[in-house]
Amino acid sequence: MNFSAEILCVGTEILLGNITNTNATVISQGLASVGVGLYHHTVVGDNPQRLKDALEIAFARNNLVITTGGLGPTYDDLTKETIAAYFGKKLVMHAESEEAIRSLFARWGRPMTENNLKQAMMPEGCTVLPNANGTAPGCIIEGADGKTAIMLPGPPREMAPMFRDQVLPWLEQRSGRVLRSHNVHFFGIGESALEAQLRDKMEQMENPTLAPYAKDGEVMLRVTAAAPTPEEAEVMMAPVIEKLQEHFADLIYGVDVNDLQTAAVQALQQKGLTVATAESCTGGFVSKRITEVPGSSEVFGFGMVTYANEAKMKLLGVQEETLRQYGAVSAQTAAEMAAGARALSGADIALSVTGIAGPGGGSTEKPVGLVYIGVDSPWHSEVVELNLNRGYAQQRERIRYIAGSHALDLLRRTALKK
Amino acid sequence: MNFSAEILCVGTEILLGNITNTNATVISQGLASVGVGLYHHTVVGDNPQRLKDALEIAFARNNLVITTGGLGPTYDDLTKETIAAYFGKKLVMHAESEEAIRSLFARWGRPMTENNLKQAMMPEGCTVLPNANGTAPGCIIEGADGKTAIMLPGPPREMAPMFRDQVLPWLEQRSGRVLRSHNVHFFGIGESALEAQLRDKMEQMENPTLAPYAKDGEVMLRVTAAAPTPEEAEVMMAPVIEKLQEHFADLIYGVDVNDLQTAAVQALQQKGLTVATAESCTGGFVSKRITEVPGSSEVFGFGMVTYANEAKMKLLGVQEETLRQYGAVSAQTAAEMAAGARALSGADIALSVTGIAGPGGGSTEKPVGLVYIGVDSPWHSEVVELNLNRGYAQQRERIRYIAGSHALDLLRRTALKK
Repeated sequence: MNFSAEILCVGTEILLGNITNTNATVISQGLASVGVGLYHHTVVGDNPQRLKDALEIAFARNNLVITTGGLGPTYDDLTKETIAAYFGKKLVMHAESEEAIRSLFARWGRPMTENNLKQAMMPEGCTVLPNANGTAPGCIIEGADGKTAIMLPGPPREMAPMFRDQVLPWLEQRSGRVLRSHNVHFFGIGESALEAQLRDKMEQMENPTLAPYAKDGEVMLRVTAAAPTPEEAEVMMAPVIEKLQEHFADLIYGVDVNDLQTAAVQALQQKGLTVATAESCTGGFVSKRITEVPGSSEVFGFGMVTYANEAKMKLLGVQEETLRQYGAVSAQTAAEMAAGARALSGADIALSVTGIAGPGGGSTEKPVGLVYIGVDSPWHSEVVELNLNRGYAQQRERIRYIAGSHALDLLRRTALKK
Repeated sequence: MNFSAEILCVGTEILLGNITNTNATVISQGLASVGVGLYHHTVVGDNPQRLKDALEIAFARNNLVITTGGLGPTYDDLTKETIAAYFGKKLVMHAESEEAIRSLFARWGRPMTENNLKQAMMPEGCTVLPNANGTAPGCIIEGADGKTAIMLPGPPREMAPMFRDQVLPWLEQRSGRVLRSHNVHFFGIGESALEAQLRDKMEQMENPTLAPYAKDGEVMLRVTAAAPTPEEAEVMMAPVIEKLQEHFADLIYGVDVNDLQTAAVQALQQKGLTVATAESCTGGFVSKRITEVPGSSEVFGFGMVTYANEAKMKLLGVQEETLRQYGAVSAQTAAEMAAGARALSGADIALSVTGIAGPGGGSTEKPVGLVYIGVDSPWHSEVVELNLNRGYAQQRERIRYIAGSHALDLLRRTALKK
């Protein structure tokens, strides 16, 4: 079956702007990952007539409609009723779903009101999708004319796993081929420079494909192969990823890794090293990111947020003379901060950040966005100057984030040098 | 004019899931804030036939269509062309927009390619919306039959200010009345408890209205008044907000304030106080949030991230005996961390956080989600025990965030006690 898809999200709260429609993003990414063409998103409120009209429009232009929302127990949850009527199907009690709902309430120790069983009423002949994270199951209805509706619950915590674990495999099985991807993560090269080098260095390929995505100062390159089986897809991607790693070397911080902080923590773990941080303008953002990684306590014990000059001197031993002569935002101060943090903590590597995140505090010589990051270790010490001003009105958090990313990448590269 | 609205977003990147449609959220919120009924969101790719079809569907069911995207210089930017054709209008060069684009390129010092002037071609007779943050202006077309199209650029940084500063005032002017809102921010009371108290304590009101929104462990209550003028709306809201403040007292951390960290920094500024932080499980997240606030250097100079026991002892002077007897996650350790941070920094107030963010490290006596926050000052010292486990699979960042929110609220209340 060649699907052309539409996502139809049901929920007045989306139209009021109370929530952002991230469900549509997750489903869109998933459909792209299995090669299903998606042509429309639609959102309607909890209104049965508008839902019915939207459903008719959707099936007039596409043959696969994936809905979210409106499967709950309340009177305004009408997605199943409306779609079952469209397909000319009755709703019947689904024994396993009824049992699942009853046992969920028993586990919670709460009385189950009768309206909850509405969630176990399913269109006859549908494929029921059990809900591992809530009470309302989803379902798939296939009409005689090839039209297919897939109904998913609205809460993202319930929708996303059901879509990933049940709907994507179902779609792959229908298509007779699988798409598999690996994400290659770059730091320190822009999207257009990466594209130019790919054009020069890699032969043109149709399968696997290479698609770059730029975000928050990084580039992610998605390598995707289509094949009859997952194993064959992997075999097709392996030499491509190897060639990328050979060519781009340490501009690649990881393959299928969550983020820079995870890559940095993994590099430290791999080498059996520890790190301490000394932060001024990032105010703890770097240590916050390091400690996002579960198990980071193995590699991180000490962080100093020295926002004031007094703190830089008292905690890190930065010389008053250095601050007076070069200023708090200087390569010299960054170097002394890192050295002081390493001495205080006894860590193998220390990382420092000092800069001007704005909106105030900038000058002609030292504009907003000027940041120094420093690293100190027995085998490698370095200070890097960054100019992160993009002229946006609200760039304080962006400057702090990107400065932290540079620091985390410097940490990763320093650890791997050992 | 009584508008019934639809948002029509144009962009293949949304359908591929590369970006989340936050433009729709921003426009939805804005329309709700001025009382325009919004009934549909639609997304189509950069495809002129599907855009034309979607436009016809939109105008068959609504009389106001707000588009985003497709106003740029490239060949696949076709929103203006398609909508102008729908209204039977030609595109003509708009001299002021042409001049604005030419001078932008001159300011950037970059040569302007001719295709950029496509962005200055506007439907004849439209109201042009200058773009303060990019090259593509927006516009408003009003048809003879009351149908209105408002076209906005796709990049959120360009779209949001244009919508807020030009479209919302235009809509208010058309409606002959204004809606004004104030957001009352609560911490320490849940949404349902707040609703129950509002039912008991506040008389039923139709104007202003009260609407609560729960998010990330906080509740925001939006007070909205409709009136002929902004001044009259303010007069209607003032006594309601006063009554809320009287009843809920310090459960309200601010009115129209950005967030808890801003409220905490403002409380410190108001009282002329400084704070230092000592963080274990939050790993710098609290100091990161404090330093998000521009000007926070007035009130914050020192932060200690003592992730390891050694750091707690060495930096903060926590007693080894305390750690051995009560453990790092204990009220005693939280109290010593705060006292030590205050002594080390000389700040007026010190804040501490120690807990188990998970996923590992929990036990029966000390489960994941157990967090102690401490505050130390000459006039008030306190340790609070929190149990933040919700049983979700991925709750580490949520536990760290909510623990930090409790700490920031404790900081605010402690400062205001002085």
